[in-house]
Amino acid sequence: MKSAFWWERKDLSYNNNSLEFAGRNVQHLAEMFQTPSFFYSAKRLKKNLKRLSLVLSNTGLNHKIYYAMKANRHVPLLTYMKTTGLCGVDACSPEEVLLALSCGFDASEISYTATSVSNADLDFLSRYPDLIVNCDSISQIKRLGKKCPNRDIGIRINPAMGTGYGSVDVLRYSGEKTTKFGIYKEQFDDALQAAKDYNLVVKRIHFHTGCGYLSSQLPVWEKILEACLWFIKRVDGIEVVNLGGGLGVPHTTSDEKLDLEKWSGVIQKVFEGKNISIEIEPGDYIVKDAGILLLEVNMVEKKQETVFAGVNGGFNLAVEPFFYSLPCEPVACVIHDPKKPFKPVTIAGNINEALDVWMENHPMPEIYEGDFLAMINAGGYAASMSSNHCMRGAVREFLLF
Amino acid sequence: MKSAFWWERKDLSYNNNSLEFAGRNVQHLAEMFQTPSFFYSAKRLKKNLKRLSLVLSNTGLNHKIYYAMKANRHVPLLTYMKTTGLCGVDACSPEEVLLALSCGFDASEISYTATSVSNADLDFLSRYPDLIVNCDSISQIKRLGKKCPNRDIGIRINPAMGTGYGSVDVLRYSGEKTTKFGIYKEQFDDALQAAKDYNLVVKRIHFHTGCGYLSSQLPVWEKILEACLWFIKRVDGIEVVNLGGGLGVPHTTSDEKLDLEKWSGVIQKVFEGKNISIEIEPGDYIVKDAGILLLEVNMVEKKQETVFAGVNGGFNLAVEPFFYSLPCEPVACVIHDPKKPFKPVTIAGNINEALDVWMENHPMPEIYEGDFLAMINAGGYAASMSSNHCMRGAVREFLLF
Repeated sequence: MKSAFWWERKDLSYNNNSLEFAGRNVQHLAEMFQTPSFFYSAKRLKKNLKRLSLVLSNTGLNHKIYYAMKANRHVPLLTYMKTTGLCGVDACSPEEVLLALSCGFDASEISYTATSVSNADLDFLSRYPDLIVNCDSISQIKRLGKKCPNRDIGIRINPAMGTGYGSVDVLRYSGEKTTKFGIYKEQFDDALQAAKDYNLVVKRIHFHTGCGYLSSQLPVWEKILEACLWFIKRVDGIEVVNLGGGLGVPHTTSDEKLDLEKWSGVIQKVFEGKNISIEIEPGDYIVKDAGILLLEVNMVEKKQETVFAGVNGGFNLAVEPFFYSLPCEPVACVIHDPKKPFKPVTIAGNINEALDVWMENHPMPEIYEGDFLAMINAGGYAASMSSNHCMRGAVREFLLF
Repeated sequence: MKSAFWWERKDLSYNNNSLEFAGRNVQHLAEMFQTPSFFYSAKRLKKNLKRLSLVLSNTGLNHKIYYAMKANRHVPLLTYMKTTGLCGVDACSPEEVLLALSCGFDASEISYTATSVSNADLDFLSRYPDLIVNCDSISQIKRLGKKCPNRDIGIRINPAMGTGYGSVDVLRYSGEKTTKFGIYKEQFDDALQAAKDYNLVVKRIHFHTGCGYLSSQLPVWEKILEACLWFIKRVDGIEVVNLGGGLGVPHTTSDEKLDLEKWSGVIQKVFEGKNISIEIEPGDYIVKDAGILLLEVNMVEKKQETVFAGVNGGFNLAVEPFFYSLPCEPVACVIHDPKKPFKPVTIAGNINEALDVWMENHPMPEIYEGDFLAMINAGGYAASMSSNHCMRGAVREFLLF
């Protein structure tokens, strides 16, 4: 298939100038299910999971994938993930754990890594001895130890290095500036001592150093993995290293996608022969490109010299394009006249805030009021972070098989 | 009263090293009502409303205040506002209108100004002939006119000038860059013609040119008002000008508060003798400093050289400090030892994102795990924009009389 657009792939492409997604005509989806609505492709997310699982298998290392449910917690989607048998769940709050359990995941399939954990959270965790807990602070180690002596734990460390989506500073989890996450070298011996004092057994080192790295960031990522060996070597009886999430997907035509062979090659190179199991916690990589948000064009109008298309959904439904510079590129569901050239259109939402613009001067085919637009890459950190700002939060989510 | 802190006032101050708000000991509030919780002072918001009402009365101009409910739609708070008789409501979606109606406001007390309005929205508006509708686009004028010929309308204009909270670019509603809001000079004659074609009667000019202006922005604001006269003069039979909202409150020690006498003086200077009624739509100014968010300190710990206090609420409960650079300054509910000097503490939330830091290196008294912090200025655009990200969205709201 010859792709006219950078985002086209077999299950997301134009067919006779009509957009198709997950084997459906998207215009029909919008008409049948109404807008605003999110649609998630079960096949695509399984494919993303399988691709990851395969390259990890090829390393010869023991491995496990925990899907970061904070990216998308649509109940049918979580339940379907359970049925694939390809992953557990990464949770970060008691409510997330309960939701994962309600979808059929066993406590032993849930990895819990949170920050600023309360005593109430720890009471909750103490009721699930099989739940995998990674501690983010010495305070947490001590307070967990009091409640659950002899429990196996992981320690989240902070290697003071980070990487991720190009220039998105807000997503740096670790780097030159001291962040709230994990335990630094300076305090690591105290953390191990605290675990010993409270009879906790450290079996796992966990780290997560940024969101959305692509191939060009792999050399930095390799350095981060190597830096983590400093911590790993200090823990007797270490069994597992959890490399966190952060595997990115392309958001624009200039993004080069993450080369998974190279990625797993880095893991193999750093951990081969060390008798350590590998865990990862991808979110975006599994669900982001498996989802679209369908919106209707309410208004098309020139203001000064700019052509605006106003749609029936705004930044409250998907914050990343507006606050993280990670666009959900708007795609016309129907190209009415393929002979006409694309023209720049500013796609604006229906929220009364100036920042509520999906994309400025984006090349679009002719659009009319009543047309539908698909916001691509809307499967991750969109619905799960949505709000009811201006009481425009009513949105539906559909899992498509 | 001598204030030790810039934010102290009669109903928000320390008494014997215990914070008091709305006549309550805040530590007791936290213990009784649990955290995370928002608390809103009925007295304070009435005081804010009365202050505005008084200076507007002093201009001698007819005037009306519409509270921008998008700032805070806590049902008891809206209902209490109705009982004050001091304001109507500014709504921007059908759901907001329905909520205002449910709290006892009459349709004639509701001003509706929205953007990217759908046909479904217009069907809804057509059922409330008394509702005050301001049109934001020529498309909306035409579509509303088809459904409701002979209706009175306002036109939202865009003077291509803006002002507001210091450096907060995202809040610019109008300015050098073409925004999605209102009708520009270039298209204004077409808008008037469209109204005429569809037998709509233009009674009102509406504009809103930014959020959070303080005294230092008043000279620019005056220029904006003068620029709007160009539009007003073009409308035969104009009765009302709606100046929008945007009246700001101080967020930091260096912010100088809005001088209301100067503000109303500008309005008087520009509109006196023009036989025009004035409407305004404040949100933040009414509710922001009438609200606090109480959080518990889960963890106090040094990471590298930074002291972190981790609390049980994050950016999902109040996005402005994180994305708009408008802090909710963290205040200790109890100063345990007033003789000890304040030391820099980084206050971090419980969301697994790096940006989830309330304030960095903020001077704080000694804090311990189990202490409570009050995030001040949390009455506006906090709960109303909150999300359930990481499923940490459970928060209560209380109106205090």
